[in-house]
Amino acid sequence: MARDSQLAALVAPIQGGLERMRDVLVESLRSDVPAVSDMLDHIGRFRGKQLRGALVLLSASAAENTPAPPAAAPRGALEQEAAAPNADEMPAVAAIVEMLHLATLVHDDVLDGAVKRRRVASVNRRWDNQVAVLLGDFLYSRTFYISTTLSSRLASQLLSKATEEICAGEIEQAAGRFDFDMPLSRAERIATAKTGALYGAACELGASYPRREAEASYGEARCGAALRAYGRELGLAFQIVDDVLDLEGDEEVVGKGVGADVADGKVTWPVLHVYASASPGVRAAIRDAYTLPGLDEAPGGRLARLHRVCDLAPGVKAALARAESLVASSRARLTSLRPGPAHAALEALGDYVLQRSW
Amino acid sequence: MARDSQLAALVAPIQGGLERMRDVLVESLRSDVPAVSDMLDHIGRFRGKQLRGALVLLSASAAENTPAPPAAAPRGALEQEAAAPNADEMPAVAAIVEMLHLATLVHDDVLDGAVKRRRVASVNRRWDNQVAVLLGDFLYSRTFYISTTLSSRLASQLLSKATEEICAGEIEQAAGRFDFDMPLSRAERIATAKTGALYGAACELGASYPRREAEASYGEARCGAALRAYGRELGLAFQIVDDVLDLEGDEEVVGKGVGADVADGKVTWPVLHVYASASPGVRAAIRDAYTLPGLDEAPGGRLARLHRVCDLAPGVKAALARAESLVASSRARLTSLRPGPAHAALEALGDYVLQRSW
Repeated sequence: MARDSQLAALVAPIQGGLERMRDVLVESLRSDVPAVSDMLDHIGRFRGKQLRGALVLLSASAAENTPAPPAAAPRGALEQEAAAPNADEMPAVAAIVEMLHLATLVHDDVLDGAVKRRRVASVNRRWDNQVAVLLGDFLYSRTFYISTTLSSRLASQLLSKATEEICAGEIEQAAGRFDFDMPLSRAERIATAKTGALYGAACELGASYPRREAEASYGEARCGAALRAYGRELGLAFQIVDDVLDLEGDEEVVGKGVGADVADGKVTWPVLHVYASASPGVRAAIRDAYTLPGLDEAPGGRLARLHRVCDLAPGVKAALARAESLVASSRARLTSLRPGPAHAALEALGDYVLQRSW
Repeated sequence: MARDSQLAALVAPIQGGLERMRDVLVESLRSDVPAVSDMLDHIGRFRGKQLRGALVLLSASAAENTPAPPAAAPRGALEQEAAAPNADEMPAVAAIVEMLHLATLVHDDVLDGAVKRRRVASVNRRWDNQVAVLLGDFLYSRTFYISTTLSSRLASQLLSKATEEICAGEIEQAAGRFDFDMPLSRAERIATAKTGALYGAACELGASYPRREAEASYGEARCGAALRAYGRELGLAFQIVDDVLDLEGDEEVVGKGVGADVADGKVTWPVLHVYASASPGVRAAIRDAYTLPGLDEAPGGRLARLHRVCDLAPGVKAALARAESLVASSRARLTSLRPGPAHAALEALGDYVLQRSW
């Protein structure tokens, strides 16, 4: 497909790293417990875009963050399971980021009652909700464990912190269902947590691993903060586009059902924008579309009703303008990086996000 | 209650550490996100026995594992958020173990559909399953993050590995529902994973943190492996007693419903033992008690039916004998430790586990 080939061209500069990342992933999704092994084999078929792993590797390349020469200082006694300090751990870091994302997807499918994930049965569908919760927990703990075997704890720290932010954002979103007066700033904080937190951590790890820039020696890559900001803005833009697709997308192209947010009571950016400037009568009709009983079963569901009672076009337009502005801002974060193929790919990813489906 | 005062006497030698552990827990269960903060306040009321935290502190005391003098080697650049290396981090380690346990409880309540936890509404009851899954994930990631801020990564490693074992054991248990031919060895592996893994990690951390014994200098505590084995056996004994209580316990004393295992299709140690030596007719009747439709609603539920169709007493007797033998074995692990109040408390914990309710 055109979309896939577009992404393949973007990640061409890091093809070798991606292949090593996939090897690490295959190694990491194994278990001696047969029941667990079956489930890991199953989710190994959820081959996604692996955009987060690619962000680690593209950021490392763009920031020229390559393995340091062997450390002069003696290694700490605790590092017995850690990799050699001058080995290229970046593909392993990328694999850890992808595993973490996989854990969140397994739980997301439980929360959303999803039956399919990338054209394969979801874990909750193939087994049940209980083991899907447990498998997600298994993946989280396996992922954190693997991160503790790296030579630096930076991946453990940034990724556990990002996961905390993701979960807090999801909880805030759940608590804010049917909150039509939610400020856009809060909606953006939630969307940043859901998608931007892991993008940002992936980019920062690529630029900074194994050391945060405050501790990097002179001449080493020092663009962790810039690439973190790039990732967070790109992730927020992605999420806003996702919100628009759920209202306007073509199911065939998007690859998943549309209208899920409305059915779940999630009042997303474009709807908040429309609601804020609507008349009292239209506001009441919007609330009805989300809340009246029986609409889930009507043709087109709640989304069709929402489209009938208000004009979503201004909200969609404003949302896309906001996403474009975020992409422009994210690009500006890259100016300190030396031009090259990875830098160009990070710039082009903004267009990829904006053009996801139209 | 007599039970509570018995435990209070056991943990008297580490009272100061427990108080610091509770301070760390209160500090750690905070959030700037109001929806998360509400939920953290709620689960702060799940004040349990805190046995796992006590195991960390008792093991540290029994193994004479006290803070080392300031390290001579320069600290690694990555440790910017870590505590001073000679600070007593043991209460923080104990708090992390308790937080991890809390995360597993929040998800357990979702999996079991529990409505109460220690006389307080479960998170899934007070809110819903979705946010309870998210809150458990939040707690896991917060716990791992806090563990990465300690001076040593040993807590991160042992606890993420223990969590992986817990989840794999729970998945194996779910896959083994209605498996009446499960070998006792597998049932014990599952029970060890569910309870022994975290007990063992808690005890090993107490004895070994910040260094595993292979790296400890001469004269430092070197009983991590022994205390790990102690904890795993004690945990398995605890779980087998738990299995017995679910068949024979008094709901008023046990503090939770009995018969849940039978209702959930979990064929536990005592039942496996009875089934293995039962006649074909009794075997069929046992299977019927677990599987026939409609029995959940009958008076006494499936457990009453099970009691009617077979004599569980030999299974219960054998299970308790096995638990006693495990406790004896766990005690033998303690012989290399110097006698003292903490050593005596670890010995007495075996009796506490065996006498949990009769």
